[in-house]
Amino acid sequence: MSRKLTAEFIGTLWLVLGGCGSAVLAAAFPQVGIGLLGVSFAFGLTVLTMAYTIGHVSGCHLNPAVTLGLVAAGKFNASEAPGYIVAQVLGAIAAGAILFLIASGKPGFEIGGFASNGFGDLSPGKYGLMAAFLCEVVMTAFFLVVICGATSARAPAGFAPIAIGLCLTLIHLVSIPVTNTSVNPARSTGVAIFAGGDYIAQLWLFWVAPILGAVLGGVVHKVLEGDAALAPAPAE
Amino acid sequence: MSRKLTAEFIGTLWLVLGGCGSAVLAAAFPQVGIGLLGVSFAFGLTVLTMAYTIGHVSGCHLNPAVTLGLVAAGKFNASEAPGYIVAQVLGAIAAGAILFLIASGKPGFEIGGFASNGFGDLSPGKYGLMAAFLCEVVMTAFFLVVICGATSARAPAGFAPIAIGLCLTLIHLVSIPVTNTSVNPARSTGVAIFAGGDYIAQLWLFWVAPILGAVLGGVVHKVLEGDAALAPAPAE
Amino acid sequence: MSRKLTAEFIGTLWLVLGGCGSAVLAAAFPQVGIGLLGVSFAFGLTVLTMAYTIGHVSGCHLNPAVTLGLVAAGKFNASEAPGYIVAQVLGAIAAGAILFLIASGKPGFEIGGFASNGFGDLSPGKYGLMAAFLCEVVMTAFFLVVICGATSARAPAGFAPIAIGLCLTLIHLVSIPVTNTSVNPARSTGVAIFAGGDYIAQLWLFWVAPILGAVLGGVVHKVLEGDAALAPAPAE
Amino acid sequence: MSRKLTAEFIGTLWLVLGGCGSAVLAAAFPQVGIGLLGVSFAFGLTVLTMAYTIGHVSGCHLNPAVTLGLVAAGKFNASEAPGYIVAQVLGAIAAGAILFLIASGKPGFEIGGFASNGFGDLSPGKYGLMAAFLCEVVMTAFFLVVICGATSARAPAGFAPIAIGLCLTLIHLVSIPVTNTSVNPARSTGVAIFAGGDYIAQLWLFWVAPILGAVLGGVVHKVLEGDAALAPAPAE
Repeated sequence: MSRKLTAEFIGTLWLVLGGCGSAVLAAAFPQVGIGLLGVSFAFGLTVLTMAYTIGHVSGCHLNPAVTLGLVAAGKFNASEAPGYIVAQVLGAIAAGAILFLIASGKPGFEIGGFASNGFGDLSPGKYGLMAAFLCEVVMTAFFLVVICGATSARAPAGFAPIAIGLCLTLIHLVSIPVTNTSVNPARSTGVAIFAGGDYIAQLWLFWVAPILGAVLGGVVHKVLEGDAALAPAPAE
Repeated sequence: MSRKLTAEFIGTLWLVLGGCGSAVLAAAFPQVGIGLLGVSFAFGLTVLTMAYTIGHVSGCHLNPAVTLGLVAAGKFNASEAPGYIVAQVLGAIAAGAILFLIASGKPGFEIGGFASNGFGDLSPGKYGLMAAFLCEVVMTAFFLVVICGATSARAPAGFAPIAIGLCLTLIHLVSIPVTNTSVNPARSTGVAIFAGGDYIAQLWLFWVAPILGAVLGGVVHKVLEGDAALAPAPAE
Repeated sequence: MSRKLTAEFIGTLWLVLGGCGSAVLAAAFPQVGIGLLGVSFAFGLTVLTMAYTIGHVSGCHLNPAVTLGLVAAGKFNASEAPGYIVAQVLGAIAAGAILFLIASGKPGFEIGGFASNGFGDLSPGKYGLMAAFLCEVVMTAFFLVVICGATSARAPAGFAPIAIGLCLTLIHLVSIPVTNTSVNPARSTGVAIFAGGDYIAQLWLFWVAPILGAVLGGVVHKVLEGDAALAPAPAE
Repeated sequence: MSRKLTAEFIGTLWLVLGGCGSAVLAAAFPQVGIGLLGVSFAFGLTVLTMAYTIGHVSGCHLNPAVTLGLVAAGKFNASEAPGYIVAQVLGAIAAGAILFLIASGKPGFEIGGFASNGFGDLSPGKYGLMAAFLCEVVMTAFFLVVICGATSARAPAGFAPIAIGLCLTLIHLVSIPVTNTSVNPARSTGVAIFAGGDYIAQLWLFWVAPILGAVLGGVVHKVLEGDAALAPAPAE
């Protein structure tokens, strides 16, 4: 496995372990739990921290939708996408396994949803299919607009990890009640295969909607930047 | 629509979808809701993320009061203001529509205040007209002081989006109980037209007070900067 | 009033209005209040935002203890200190007045402690005089160590407002239960004169302990920096 | 004591006083306590603030596991490690003493766990030995990956304290329920010797697991960076 793919594996492992781990282990801890606000910060900080750590190695996508959205925006080479996506999904599954080992290490553990994404009866707030689909498309589209804009050559250098990480925090602050927030097919897959059953049956939405949104976001970015969008993307 | 106006439309859409969306969908979620603290971060992070994304396209005002305050401070061309304001209001209304589609996608949905601003009986804490007006004027004035100061040529380059975004977070930490926090006529308009009735009747205050405060803030900025305020504003 | 003193007046007004305002208006709002965590962020963000806004005008002290600690560290001219301190106290009192006007604008308002500092019966957690004194000395000492270190010529340029603002957040996360957190005689004075009575009688501690701690912190800074501490301080 | 060791003493004192102090004094304050989310921010902000303050003096390790992980990564001289570790442990114990003096200054004080780390019956969520060990190893490994990556010559300069500090916040958001989060043998030691009894008997795990994880993280960093890992580490 190349250094780039190793970085995507490690980084996506961190995203799922940190984000879903905070949800499974700490969100509803009695009296002093971190709640949805804490989970939102956790997801965002996995990206912020990894973007400073491996941004200069792999670009720190950590997310098949991001990889494909960057391809749509003309900022990433399509031929590299399959390898990235495989590494991301494997990293997410490894995170699910580590999280399962830790979470199951207390008396009376029940796996429950294991921070999986869902709609209808599996939505935290019981939001239906259409609302869930729309929410995932729109949120991922804006995520890509921010990713592409903040890493553009005309944006201040070095700050993109802050903008992108905290954008993921913001997305969670809005949409956890709707779908438990995916915007990332790897993250959804990495925990759903442990939660099993109905969560796997709904997994298709968390591949289709984020990827659709990401491609849409890549196109919006091109409109916003005009000719400047044609310039080569910076490494970081 | 020019790229600048497209950017203001998209950016204001994000501000209202992210900020009001967090309030409508997640603030009072049972047990683990994000509360007013989470809503405060959400509003601030919409501005932080967009300022890194479109700051180099349109300046990222996202707010008619900001546009007019920058005119008052001599940092923005008055002739461009009407187009900016129209784009901002349209973006805010588009956000209200998207948010309505998502929020209404669960059983038993009731629109309620839909994160609208208000005073008297419509104030979260039942604050009266005078307190609401004073609060919106003062908060918007300081918002403009920070916007103008942090983007001045003598401030550290690249950090303005952090200062400005987190200033909006701070403003919400103080003033949500008073007016549900506007400091932004577009944000107020974008959701009030969906909440309807009394919220529309009170909308005038959330145009008058923020704009008055913003102009005041622009003047205070000039006093603070002295001759340096006459230098041309940086693009970002 | 010079531009520097105007900046200190405006900045300290913002610190007290934002920090104490969040405590008075939003901390204990039913169900969704921001709590001590929100108040901690509010205080920190007043400093973060103002440091980017007026750091290049006055240095953004906003605090008599900071001004005197910088004198002790050899980073500020003693002859300018009295003017700074007067401007800071006046700004804090102006903030107390504005906050009173807003806070009293709802039915059934009672002033209570008005976010004042205190020990013994007036401590939020009923901490005694010695604990309160020790806590204020130690917290202010570390505040100055961070202020002096993060603005030293060898620290990364431009990041000091983030370090200093979030240091104030951290200080509040620890010490609100002990004294309601001062580390700033102007902030204590600006609200105590509205709360009145016993709060004024305890105000001496919130002048003596923070100033003592600040001078101590300035000395620790000199030890940490060695010869480098003799270099002139950067403007920001 | 050299300036470097003084810096490590002062910095680790701040880490334990700020992080454990927030847990002991403010986490469970009635109604408005900061909870595990506030404690997570407090720990992270101790590192963020100190890294800007003493990063240019000692490198700001504040943690024996970090010091040894940096040795493993080839970024720190092994001969300096013993002095650093002694200074860190002494600073942590000094913090425990100061915190005890403050915390005991209210009527009815009981020391309880005093923010100590533990597993089994002493774990906040009653997680067993294996889960606790695995969690501490994995979390410290990722901490070192972030520390080494964010300070690499190819990462954006000046941002490492933000990435590293907020990584510690993230680690706490996930793992407080499991072990009360150590990833730092000095932090564990500084409070356990005041909590006494069983907490001291479990202290071995919070030396072994974080150091094992840190060395593992240093090795992962070398894999990620390839030849670039051989370049000398930057001072900050």
